[in-house]
Amino acid sequence: MEVRRGDGSVFRGVLMPKHETSHPDTVVIKLGNGYNIGVLVGEGDDIVVKGSLRPGTPGALVPLLEEPLQPAEERVYIIGAGGTIASRVDYETGAVKPYLDASELATTIPELQRYASIEAEQLFSILSEDMKPSMWEAIVDRAARVLEAGYDGVVVAHGTDTMAFTASALSFAFHKGLPSPVILTGSQRSSDRPSSDAAFNLTASVLAASRAPFAEVAVVMHGETGDTYALAHRGVRVKKMHSSRRDAFQSVNDKPLARIYPFEGRVEMLRDDYRRRGESGLEVDNGFEERVALVKHFPGLISEVIDALLDRGFKGIVVEGTGFGHVSSDAIKSIERARDQGVPIVITTQTVFGRVNLNVYSTGRKMLAAGAIPAGDMTSEAAYAKLSWILARTRELEVVRKMFQRNLAGEVSERHILRLYRHIGGV
Amino acid sequence: MEVRRGDGSVFRGVLMPKHETSHPDTVVIKLGNGYNIGVLVGEGDDIVVKGSLRPGTPGALVPLLEEPLQPAEERVYIIGAGGTIASRVDYETGAVKPYLDASELATTIPELQRYASIEAEQLFSILSEDMKPSMWEAIVDRAARVLEAGYDGVVVAHGTDTMAFTASALSFAFHKGLPSPVILTGSQRSSDRPSSDAAFNLTASVLAASRAPFAEVAVVMHGETGDTYALAHRGVRVKKMHSSRRDAFQSVNDKPLARIYPFEGRVEMLRDDYRRRGESGLEVDNGFEERVALVKHFPGLISEVIDALLDRGFKGIVVEGTGFGHVSSDAIKSIERARDQGVPIVITTQTVFGRVNLNVYSTGRKMLAAGAIPAGDMTSEAAYAKLSWILARTRELEVVRKMFQRNLAGEVSERHILRLYRHIGGV
Repeated sequence: MEVRRGDGSVFRGVLMPKHETSHPDTVVIKLGNGYNIGVLVGEGDDIVVKGSLRPGTPGALVPLLEEPLQPAEERVYIIGAGGTIASRVDYETGAVKPYLDASELATTIPELQRYASIEAEQLFSILSEDMKPSMWEAIVDRAARVLEAGYDGVVVAHGTDTMAFTASALSFAFHKGLPSPVILTGSQRSSDRPSSDAAFNLTASVLAASRAPFAEVAVVMHGETGDTYALAHRGVRVKKMHSSRRDAFQSVNDKPLARIYPFEGRVEMLRDDYRRRGESGLEVDNGFEERVALVKHFPGLISEVIDALLDRGFKGIVVEGTGFGHVSSDAIKSIERARDQGVPIVITTQTVFGRVNLNVYSTGRKMLAAGAIPAGDMTSEAAYAKLSWILARTRELEVVRKMFQRNLAGEVSERHILRLYRHIGGV
Repeated sequence: MEVRRGDGSVFRGVLMPKHETSHPDTVVIKLGNGYNIGVLVGEGDDIVVKGSLRPGTPGALVPLLEEPLQPAEERVYIIGAGGTIASRVDYETGAVKPYLDASELATTIPELQRYASIEAEQLFSILSEDMKPSMWEAIVDRAARVLEAGYDGVVVAHGTDTMAFTASALSFAFHKGLPSPVILTGSQRSSDRPSSDAAFNLTASVLAASRAPFAEVAVVMHGETGDTYALAHRGVRVKKMHSSRRDAFQSVNDKPLARIYPFEGRVEMLRDDYRRRGESGLEVDNGFEERVALVKHFPGLISEVIDALLDRGFKGIVVEGTGFGHVSSDAIKSIERARDQGVPIVITTQTVFGRVNLNVYSTGRKMLAAGAIPAGDMTSEAAYAKLSWILARTRELEVVRKMFQRNLAGEVSERHILRLYRHIGGV
């Protein structure tokens, strides 16, 4: 829309919902630069309406289009899997609930058509914290059928909270063969809020799905606080590192795949070692075991936690140990008990960065002797999804160990690159 | 020692152990700048030995002293509580074991006397992962007696893996009154390794204990990869963020207290809001409940984990939720069950940075209604220690809730400072 004021000034952008407390004669407009302004509209001013103007429209990325877009030739399919990107505020309770469906999302962001013609469907409508391994399977199935139908790429709109788990799960299910990108994206603010990052992330994701040279499972989210670029993180390497910032997602112990510039339509690769688009056919290996737990060491009774999970019949346990991956000495008997019951215990580290090494200290050596499986520099999210994927294929402990220690989807490196770590805290 | 070579060059530093594969006629010397070099010693060269030269001596910080130091007037007491800083390699098994005691540590680093006359004792000799709440109590008791005896500060040599938990615990035990600094420090490499950070961290810690203007519980560890400064992190705000790097410790959601320059003898405060030295008398409130668990949400059966811990009689549970702190909807009945049994459930976030907010989404509101206690922007380590400390005082659920939500030692902020976060992942 445009506001043409009597003094000759013109404000152009997308109409946004406004706070109940604002002046009744103002309109809130999201400008092309991403900022929202409130414009007081007087008697001598004109409001010119163009295009879709429903309140709740996610913020547009580019100044309002004068001409209808010529849709790009590429075809991208958006699978809605819930989360904030498809949520809006419930004005009765004030809380955010799942609401928009994927096709509504797509039609309210006409800029997506710059990079692909879009089809969309809502697979399910849940909040991120309710994601389960059985839903990973449903997403894999749907994405596989889409890729079989010849689409250039898939975008999964997903809650951000558990996105790293789902991205890892999809990476393992597709690691044997994937011809095109499968991009997970979401937003940190719901689509009907002026500050929503939904449009930016979705546009960057459609661009990556339609044109990026990599054929991998990746998470595409804001790469910095501004609206310059998104980062494409390898699905098995990504972690949500902040509860609310737009640039919450980071690659852990590894470099991201690419920078994605949604305004410029440009994909800048940051590494060479990726699976190329069209390099392999589609080979899906779907299926996840749900009875896997993820717990962490603490200075107390971690042995009792492991014992309790064994009592309840969990089939695999990932333990975030301390530092190099240690648990207390009195928990070694619980690791032995797990081995005797045929339950694999995988060890990651709660430091987030760095790697598990059970060969340095005496405790680690005892843990190895008791049967613990070290996860190297894998994230806890990737280790959890990997163990769940393996346990749906075999429960033979030695086979689990061998499969776990094989690098399937880039989730682990032999050598740790120390410089991929910087101080984030305060100074 | 010095090597004076026939060509007139002089290498001066501390003799270090060398690799078995190195040339038999080389000696490895740690220079004053912290670097190690190998010097080939030929027939025309002299080796001049001065001072302590046992292999295994932690690297000296300053060029070898020509004159014995005049010990400073301040008095600092070092309490040995195990960990890598007091470890060395067991040459039979190749693993690292606790070994050195605190007084041995102190005498092998004569530079400590620049900042204080040192007394030291070994309270216990364990690896970091074996730290328990009962040992927190023993450290608090010993530190309190030392402060009563009029020492200018206390240094606790501790394993790095669980240091953030212990630092938080000490912060709560001393939050009512502390006249002098209590500094926790450790090392990421054992003291007999050429690359050990033990001497640097211990010297910075003694400097902070004897002369820093703050009277708080703090962790003092390398602030960057070089040997320029250490950072003093508030005990309730620190987290080990890397398994092996020297600069692994970071302040989370808050600024560190100070930079400590051990070569220059300088303490640079980074904030104003700290308890001043001598501002308060000593008031100790010691005692921790051991039956507290720390677990995390994962996309599966977190409700079963909570149920299992309730079955086993845990008296409090900290759950690292996703993003703003959510757990899956089906776990809300487990939170209700905990409330009905009088067991507090505290919620932190597994994103590490940012804060819990259970008012934004419908799931969060249901969690609050079920009795969950949000931990704001507290670390999981601080939340765990705080709940353990509170449960040793009361098990009255509403009293626990009120005590938990009070800021006792700077562990929580009302407003989140978004800029205290940076992207570290590889780009």
